[in-house]
Amino acid sequence: MRVAVIMGSTSDLPKVEPAIKILKDYGVQVDVRCLSAHRAHAGLSAFIEEANGNGTEVFITAAGMAAALPGVVASQTVLPVIGVPISGSVLDGQDALYSIVQMPSGIPVATVAINGAKNAAYLALQIIGVQHKEVQEKLLAERKQMEESAMKANEEVIAKYN
Amino acid sequence: MRVAVIMGSTSDLPKVEPAIKILKDYGVQVDVRCLSAHRAHAGLSAFIEEANGNGTEVFITAAGMAAALPGVVASQTVLPVIGVPISGSVLDGQDALYSIVQMPSGIPVATVAINGAKNAAYLALQIIGVQHKEVQEKLLAERKQMEESAMKANEEVIAKYN
Amino acid sequence: MRVAVIMGSTSDLPKVEPAIKILKDYGVQVDVRCLSAHRAHAGLSAFIEEANGNGTEVFITAAGMAAALPGVVASQTVLPVIGVPISGSVLDGQDALYSIVQMPSGIPVATVAINGAKNAAYLALQIIGVQHKEVQEKLLAERKQMEESAMKANEEVIAKYN
Amino acid sequence: MRVAVIMGSTSDLPKVEPAIKILKDYGVQVDVRCLSAHRAHAGLSAFIEEANGNGTEVFITAAGMAAALPGVVASQTVLPVIGVPISGSVLDGQDALYSIVQMPSGIPVATVAINGAKNAAYLALQIIGVQHKEVQEKLLAERKQMEESAMKANEEVIAKYN
Amino acid sequence: MRVAVIMGSTSDLPKVEPAIKILKDYGVQVDVRCLSAHRAHAGLSAFIEEANGNGTEVFITAAGMAAALPGVVASQTVLPVIGVPISGSVLDGQDALYSIVQMPSGIPVATVAINGAKNAAYLALQIIGVQHKEVQEKLLAERKQMEESAMKANEEVIAKYN
Amino acid sequence: MRVAVIMGSTSDLPKVEPAIKILKDYGVQVDVRCLSAHRAHAGLSAFIEEANGNGTEVFITAAGMAAALPGVVASQTVLPVIGVPISGSVLDGQDALYSIVQMPSGIPVATVAINGAKNAAYLALQIIGVQHKEVQEKLLAERKQMEESAMKANEEVIAKYN
Amino acid sequence: MRVAVIMGSTSDLPKVEPAIKILKDYGVQVDVRCLSAHRAHAGLSAFIEEANGNGTEVFITAAGMAAALPGVVASQTVLPVIGVPISGSVLDGQDALYSIVQMPSGIPVATVAINGAKNAAYLALQIIGVQHKEVQEKLLAERKQMEESAMKANEEVIAKYN
Amino acid sequence: MRVAVIMGSTSDLPKVEPAIKILKDYGVQVDVRCLSAHRAHAGLSAFIEEANGNGTEVFITAAGMAAALPGVVASQTVLPVIGVPISGSVLDGQDALYSIVQMPSGIPVATVAINGAKNAAYLALQIIGVQHKEVQEKLLAERKQMEESAMKANEEVIAKYN
Repeated sequence: MRVAVIMGSTSDLPKVEPAIKILKDYGVQVDVRCLSAHRAHAGLSAFIEEANGNGTEVFITAAGMAAALPGVVASQTVLPVIGVPISGSVLDGQDALYSIVQMPSGIPVATVAINGAKNAAYLALQIIGVQHKEVQEKLLAERKQMEESAMKANEEVIAKYN
Repeated sequence: MRVAVIMGSTSDLPKVEPAIKILKDYGVQVDVRCLSAHRAHAGLSAFIEEANGNGTEVFITAAGMAAALPGVVASQTVLPVIGVPISGSVLDGQDALYSIVQMPSGIPVATVAINGAKNAAYLALQIIGVQHKEVQEKLLAERKQMEESAMKANEEVIAKYN
Repeated sequence: MRVAVIMGSTSDLPKVEPAIKILKDYGVQVDVRCLSAHRAHAGLSAFIEEANGNGTEVFITAAGMAAALPGVVASQTVLPVIGVPISGSVLDGQDALYSIVQMPSGIPVATVAINGAKNAAYLALQIIGVQHKEVQEKLLAERKQMEESAMKANEEVIAKYN
Repeated sequence: MRVAVIMGSTSDLPKVEPAIKILKDYGVQVDVRCLSAHRAHAGLSAFIEEANGNGTEVFITAAGMAAALPGVVASQTVLPVIGVPISGSVLDGQDALYSIVQMPSGIPVATVAINGAKNAAYLALQIIGVQHKEVQEKLLAERKQMEESAMKANEEVIAKYN
Repeated sequence: MRVAVIMGSTSDLPKVEPAIKILKDYGVQVDVRCLSAHRAHAGLSAFIEEANGNGTEVFITAAGMAAALPGVVASQTVLPVIGVPISGSVLDGQDALYSIVQMPSGIPVATVAINGAKNAAYLALQIIGVQHKEVQEKLLAERKQMEESAMKANEEVIAKYN
Repeated sequence: MRVAVIMGSTSDLPKVEPAIKILKDYGVQVDVRCLSAHRAHAGLSAFIEEANGNGTEVFITAAGMAAALPGVVASQTVLPVIGVPISGSVLDGQDALYSIVQMPSGIPVATVAINGAKNAAYLALQIIGVQHKEVQEKLLAERKQMEESAMKANEEVIAKYN
Repeated sequence: MRVAVIMGSTSDLPKVEPAIKILKDYGVQVDVRCLSAHRAHAGLSAFIEEANGNGTEVFITAAGMAAALPGVVASQTVLPVIGVPISGSVLDGQDALYSIVQMPSGIPVATVAINGAKNAAYLALQIIGVQHKEVQEKLLAERKQMEESAMKANEEVIAKYN
Repeated sequence: MRVAVIMGSTSDLPKVEPAIKILKDYGVQVDVRCLSAHRAHAGLSAFIEEANGNGTEVFITAAGMAAALPGVVASQTVLPVIGVPISGSVLDGQDALYSIVQMPSGIPVATVAINGAKNAAYLALQIIGVQHKEVQEKLLAERKQMEESAMKANEEVIAKYN
């Protein structure tokens, strides 16, 4: 199981790191890269081509502003590409969201929430889980835990307010 | 290969139909349903449970306005869920986009463009293609064709304007 | 007199607490719950069903981002459901506002201002007051006080600037 | 059972009419008025005062642009006030939505979707139903019908596409 | 020369104060009031009526969120009414801007920039200046000073960078 | 009594014409010009200078897109300048609204609703009316008529629906 | 003098054509291409490289939705790149505007108005004119004509309304 | 080589300074001015006229809010004019972006990202580079360095996470 995580700038790292951690916790081999579509064009193309041939199953891409990275990756692979819009100093990530989600027909990018890198990891795992049933099992177990935590938080709220 | 396509309202059908066609052209078994998260709650839950157990590999969900459908499906499965925001009579689908893409941590929805049902189909095929290499091959071939059509259109433009 | 207050996440608590306080000050029995539509689906449905049968008169629901909670509650009750959009780290609650207010025909959510939990409480009291005239009387008295405070503030402004 | 329906302009009538019809079908006495907050200030105040004393249980208010009507009504009653933002020739009702939903503390307006007059009627009925159990029963029956229609539409979709 | 300055809440005071100062510097009699359209309805109407008859020449109104105050004042006077949208904790004053500027035909509000109280004062002075030529003269002098300050700032920039 | 009406483009004429008519009906001398801030810079400056000296009391300016006209006029006069944002083929006049209303300190533009030329005329009349009491009287009479028409429309609505 | 005009899709042609016409009228050699950044990646790169070496002085790029084309071109050349956001079936070109204008440091795109292809042509000519004084002369002459037309339109308006 | 840099207010200086530095590093003569379109109208016109005749090749203009400066400069020159929208205390620069980018036909402004002064400098250099091949060479070298830095950052990310 292998996922490529590409961000457009090292400034995106703090927002992308949680995704890397989740994927590694699931035993996924993660290839992390910082390759801007605008500044490292050749390096990006080389890496996409490499990933297309080395068993990578999903791309996670994160970028802000006029976020071309997710679409550029999507145009050079038929593997699923997940896009994470990163908020910048203005516009709250609305610019990145539009730049990532509004892809033309034939070249989809699976867009998650603004700064939603964790969900990019979970979505990658769900895609991997279609084939790898042990991942699916682990996701189901985590969902159960998530629900139990949620119900426990509910109990605490009940204890406090009722 | 099996994909569940759920829309929230029959009025979404004209915008969803192209996705069904593409999936069928790829030999995918498509289970089409019209099950609103708000109006057909029980039927929706029953279908999600059924799909979770019958070999379905991806959910495609399409809804407009306060589009809860994609998130509700996502909360009841660990299969990948694709969301298509549908534009209504006002707001140009911006309401549906926010309702679908801004999911909380742990429950991702893979959001595509407003009214982007075709891309939902291609994204589903790319996800299926991770496992089914013949789908991936076919997608690669279609991409090549897409590029050839694009280059042909370019030739026509060159002929016309230069 | 009984009101159910449901929030999607414990992080919403600081913004929801003022509503609980107002309701209790009016002698309303308040059932506070933290039940995410996406993470605690079964627990939420169980609670809605319980509330539907235990004399609850109004639901107050508060959620952020792709806020499905208010609509999901509304789809499972014919009691009035009030929705409070909660602002998150980006988009200023615009995502939650659209996710809550743009409900389809037949399943309304009574939406109040972004982070407007206090008004959710007052709206619940006004709804309860339709039947319970003593609540209506108390609301009228509070409005009179509110007006008096407003006029007093006006006097202070007059004293300061004129 | 009595509901006051106030619109700001006769041009809102086509969008408000469905609400009147639904309310009358439920046996509600409907007092329809066209009283702009800006153009018929005195007449509006007189009507609100009259409604406050004649057994009216809910106000439905519909207005476009800088839609002050719902808030002005809300400031003169402690009955529940429902606001329907009406879209105009520009801005898709976004102006009316903000003007209606963003009410200050203490004076809530229960806002429904842009042009969502039908839901204003259903919300009024749900509020009335808290006290009038026969209305609640009828709403539950209509919800069941709504669900049956939804499931029937689903059957037709299944028949057509599967 | 007399201007009425009305704000909707004492929390608006810090943003409104600069306007009061400018007006007083021009020798204008300023009647400052804090009278919410929603919370001090009767007091507001009484003050508008009073102002209409006491030689007031312009109203300046400042309010945030669903800012009904400017429109309500405008509906009860044929004196010029200036509206200042005040930004709140979310939405950057966009809600107040729409609530103030999008007035229906026949009842105009002269809207200035978000938090633009200073410009409300200058606009009031320009309106007063149509009749009072000494005000117009003083405004012209201040404009000249403004231009001189601007040219001086330019000189400093030239000195620093060229 | 004299008002200068300047539009940025002849394509704005159909939206500006109602303002001209209203002003003439009030006996105001109207100087209509089509002088783009960007295309007729010198002609515009010449006209502003002329108007500043010929007894003009108010400027009405209407422009779309990056609507610099109102601000440019405002920067060359201390007469009140009213700005009408005109909607274009995209963006619903939001671009013009921001370009007109968000003026810097010291140079106000009195902004009315998008395409709100009628209100620009009424605002100009209200400004003129501060000095010319007969205009104020006529405005008050028209307001009374407006209210009577509103109440008549209300009667028709009552007759139809109650 | 040579300008490369690249659009992302043949559907952009009607909006791009006016730019081609203007450029040819100025005697510029225009190389028109239809090369999507997402669908014709290799062809696009080849053309950019070719243009970089054949005396091309400016790129004009036009694209809609998640408009990566302008940025992708900009990343592969140090010639000036002009971007024209094209409006699609939803969002009025706001998505394309953000995707084009919000470029990261070091890789600028000179963005013009939504659907503003004519201005892309004029901007290209102004850039060329820095070197080619005869183009600058012709632009100055056209500006003079533009101003004359504007003043003539003004005369007609004066004749009609004054 | 000569570039004129004009900002509308000294408060814009911190955001404009990086552009000045980049231009000077390239050996460009930079004429920096602080000349508001609204407050220093005559000084601005004088400077534009001067710049038009002194060998200036590009204008860089930066302004916030109702940012008329770039358009006003553009209307008085046929040299390329670059516009930098500056964000203010509210609206995140959206007001300035619209005021700058949405120019009417015939008077283009080359708009860069909100607060994107660096890119304004690079765009100016790219325009100058069309004629001055040594600038183009230096830009190409800097791009190469930029790419090398990007690839180095990538190496560090690889070292850290893989």
